[in-house]
Amino acid sequence: MEANEWESVLQHASDSVRAWGGARPAKRAAALGRVADTLDRHADELVGIAAREVGLPEDRLRAELRRTTFQLRECAREVAEGHCLELVVDHADRHWPSGPRPDLRRTMVPLGPVVVFGASAFPFSASVAGRDTASALAAGCSVVFKAHPAHPGLSDRTAELVRQALREAGAPKGVFDVVHGERSGRELLLDPRVKAVAFTGSASVGKQLLALAVSREEPIPFFGGFGGINPVFVTRCAAARRGTEIAEGFVGALTAEGGQLCTKPGALVVPATSVLTAVAADTARRRGGSPLFDKRFAERYQREVAVLREHPDVTTLVAGEPTADGHSPTLLLTTAAAVVRSPDLLAECFGPLGLVVHYDTEDELLAVARALPGQLTTAVQGENCDEVLLDLLPELVERSGRVVWNDWPNELAVTPAMQHGGPYPASTAPQRTALGRGAIARFQRPVAFQGFPRHLLPEGLREENPLNLPRLVDL
Amino acid sequence: MEANEWESVLQHASDSVRAWGGARPAKRAAALGRVADTLDRHADELVGIAAREVGLPEDRLRAELRRTTFQLRECAREVAEGHCLELVVDHADRHWPSGPRPDLRRTMVPLGPVVVFGASAFPFSASVAGRDTASALAAGCSVVFKAHPAHPGLSDRTAELVRQALREAGAPKGVFDVVHGERSGRELLLDPRVKAVAFTGSASVGKQLLALAVSREEPIPFFGGFGGINPVFVTRCAAARRGTEIAEGFVGALTAEGGQLCTKPGALVVPATSVLTAVAADTARRRGGSPLFDKRFAERYQREVAVLREHPDVTTLVAGEPTADGHSPTLLLTTAAAVVRSPDLLAECFGPLGLVVHYDTEDELLAVARALPGQLTTAVQGENCDEVLLDLLPELVERSGRVVWNDWPNELAVTPAMQHGGPYPASTAPQRTALGRGAIARFQRPVAFQGFPRHLLPEGLREENPLNLPRLVDL
Repeated sequence: MEANEWESVLQHASDSVRAWGGARPAKRAAALGRVADTLDRHADELVGIAAREVGLPEDRLRAELRRTTFQLRECAREVAEGHCLELVVDHADRHWPSGPRPDLRRTMVPLGPVVVFGASAFPFSASVAGRDTASALAAGCSVVFKAHPAHPGLSDRTAELVRQALREAGAPKGVFDVVHGERSGRELLLDPRVKAVAFTGSASVGKQLLALAVSREEPIPFFGGFGGINPVFVTRCAAARRGTEIAEGFVGALTAEGGQLCTKPGALVVPATSVLTAVAADTARRRGGSPLFDKRFAERYQREVAVLREHPDVTTLVAGEPTADGHSPTLLLTTAAAVVRSPDLLAECFGPLGLVVHYDTEDELLAVARALPGQLTTAVQGENCDEVLLDLLPELVERSGRVVWNDWPNELAVTPAMQHGGPYPASTAPQRTALGRGAIARFQRPVAFQGFPRHLLPEGLREENPLNLPRLVDL
Repeated sequence: MEANEWESVLQHASDSVRAWGGARPAKRAAALGRVADTLDRHADELVGIAAREVGLPEDRLRAELRRTTFQLRECAREVAEGHCLELVVDHADRHWPSGPRPDLRRTMVPLGPVVVFGASAFPFSASVAGRDTASALAAGCSVVFKAHPAHPGLSDRTAELVRQALREAGAPKGVFDVVHGERSGRELLLDPRVKAVAFTGSASVGKQLLALAVSREEPIPFFGGFGGINPVFVTRCAAARRGTEIAEGFVGALTAEGGQLCTKPGALVVPATSVLTAVAADTARRRGGSPLFDKRFAERYQREVAVLREHPDVTTLVAGEPTADGHSPTLLLTTAAAVVRSPDLLAECFGPLGLVVHYDTEDELLAVARALPGQLTTAVQGENCDEVLLDLLPELVERSGRVVWNDWPNELAVTPAMQHGGPYPASTAPQRTALGRGAIARFQRPVAFQGFPRHLLPEGLREENPLNLPRLVDL
């Protein structure tokens, strides 16, 4: 892309944001709904392009597209219902306890143009029309999407459909566009017209971008989602009662979608004496290959596995191999003491790799929990009678965005109670969710209007509430 | 303070946070209420100490203490009512459109120990028991308060009363403490046990601390409130109809409390041909002295005024002077064109200084608005017939936390619709308010519990809702 094209995309994003942010909620909601409908109508075509550009199976791609259009519709619903405006009306009150109160009315306004960096491994849900784009548009922001080079054709075709749907819905020209990566994303992030950044990807790149976002003359919010190892803690009772089932479930969960999910459970912390290790190894050995995303992914995966296997505290239980259709799982073994000494053993690894961590005592189990960096998810396989839970659960809550009980963390339900995000390094914004209706709040800020006459107020704040939006009045 | 005392304060803050964060909402609310009651009961003593340590008049100090205890009570009410937990319950649903949904329940949890930096000029509301301490404690965080050297005696006595009230209410030992500044605040901020920072003060110090907070191995949120010039835009119609009244009001507002408010209106943008300039100058000339906070403040104020008066584009309308009880106001004059060329003319200046900015055309008025950095507040003195408002108001909304119509911005009502915060450099967290119930959210993050049995869930998330807290269920 030429420099002047890039400049023109940014300028359009800047010029269109006031009209888009000022549009009635119903209009923005309808536009988002139209984007979802258009993508669904072109599902066969889009999944076809995606399948040609990346190594993921069609049914996986189709499910991801379904989640993506559902996220768009959830954002549309939230905008239409008006909850995300968080309207508050306080009438003037001469006797208010903190001192005479003027008429004050609060609404949310969009931050301004947002740059969204797409992730390679999720060509729909964390890409052109994915959750960050959906929630930024819902907030009333314009979006400049930095396409990932792993699927340029899919990015362009999706963008074309998004632009077409927005145009048909009457959205201002330039409120959404895609740029490709000849010039660095850093330049986008440093442009003073840009007011927020969303990023899904690796912690190493993300932390550099975060520092840049804060170094600007006007620092801007950086919503980075990275990932983690999503460890599963198996209590002594659970291991004794359900060891086989848990071990099989773990191998199933870590190989689901080739282990290429940011919520893949990558470590199983188990009593050293339990049957789990043998059963997990046996299950992994019998498991076939999972397709990997692309060649670059496969090479990085093999490199990372090789490094771990060289680690003096790591034993190889099952050595995965390239197969006709991908890669069979690798299962490694280490100890709680080793993990506490070398927390880098708990680094994320995309692909069908699992790490079994042996503990001898409950204190060791807790020590592993305390050594954990922030995680999107942690999970417990436990029984009600496990006394260690009283100590273990608070440690996990302090380090996770989501804590899972006797289940696997892979599935990311797009639903209001979901929290997708966790303490650093799982994300740079643990106070926000990157998924669901709540994700919209990342791209808004409150503004209070004091003493305004009716006709100069935003419609939602006028006394008669003409749009019938939910408001807190004189709380 | 000795290094080992400091270390012990931090360790206590870290040790106590789980018990405090896990306490029932009613218990935390009662403790905050008790702090407010205790401070009110000792109002005479506290105001007396404050009046001896700083140069503010007693009625001003008393009003500030009243706002401070009201903020504590507002936080207590919010905690007791449970809104700030933002509870969401989604029951399992096999037919949920994004894929089968497990049982998911979301609550807010405290971030952990918070370091609060107090501001000198607000010895109650932005100090030991001020809004940041109140909202962090309400969130369930422990607080290490870094006292400002301007009022050490007041800080210690207030801290003593806060600790006593918390102890009587059964709060865990060490959940709140004060440290003094022999060692740098930077060390506190870099301590890995600290999980968030709140700061009220200057943008230059604040921006350095922000960079430090982000440079940590685990970057932490930094809630910095700085300030600004809070400009007032006077339209042509308003100047013609109410010129005298506006000019007098401006001088009254800029000298209120000696001009030592972060919401002081420091600039009046007026038509060059209006009577306002002459009336404002006349009013300022007749105004007596306002007490300044302390000697250091007075010296800095005089230095800043002298620099502005040397500026080639600035004319002195009224030269203020030291008086027996403080300092009489200074009024300077410049032009819209000069402000657009040198936006540093719009820098904040604590004290009784006002800047009149002349514009010739509406385009110049808009150019001043567009040259503005982020502000806590902007204000318009206008009339319904002013066509320029359609262009002016969106510019102000994009640059302000609060927009004021035909009123002055000084008063900060502690009320749900208030937004205290604005785009950088007014604050580093324009998406949050630093005042009122909403300020609590700065110190929390969401955690989702998936598939948990009743007895292991936080009480507020149990199916029968035993604490009867507000929840969104199956939205």
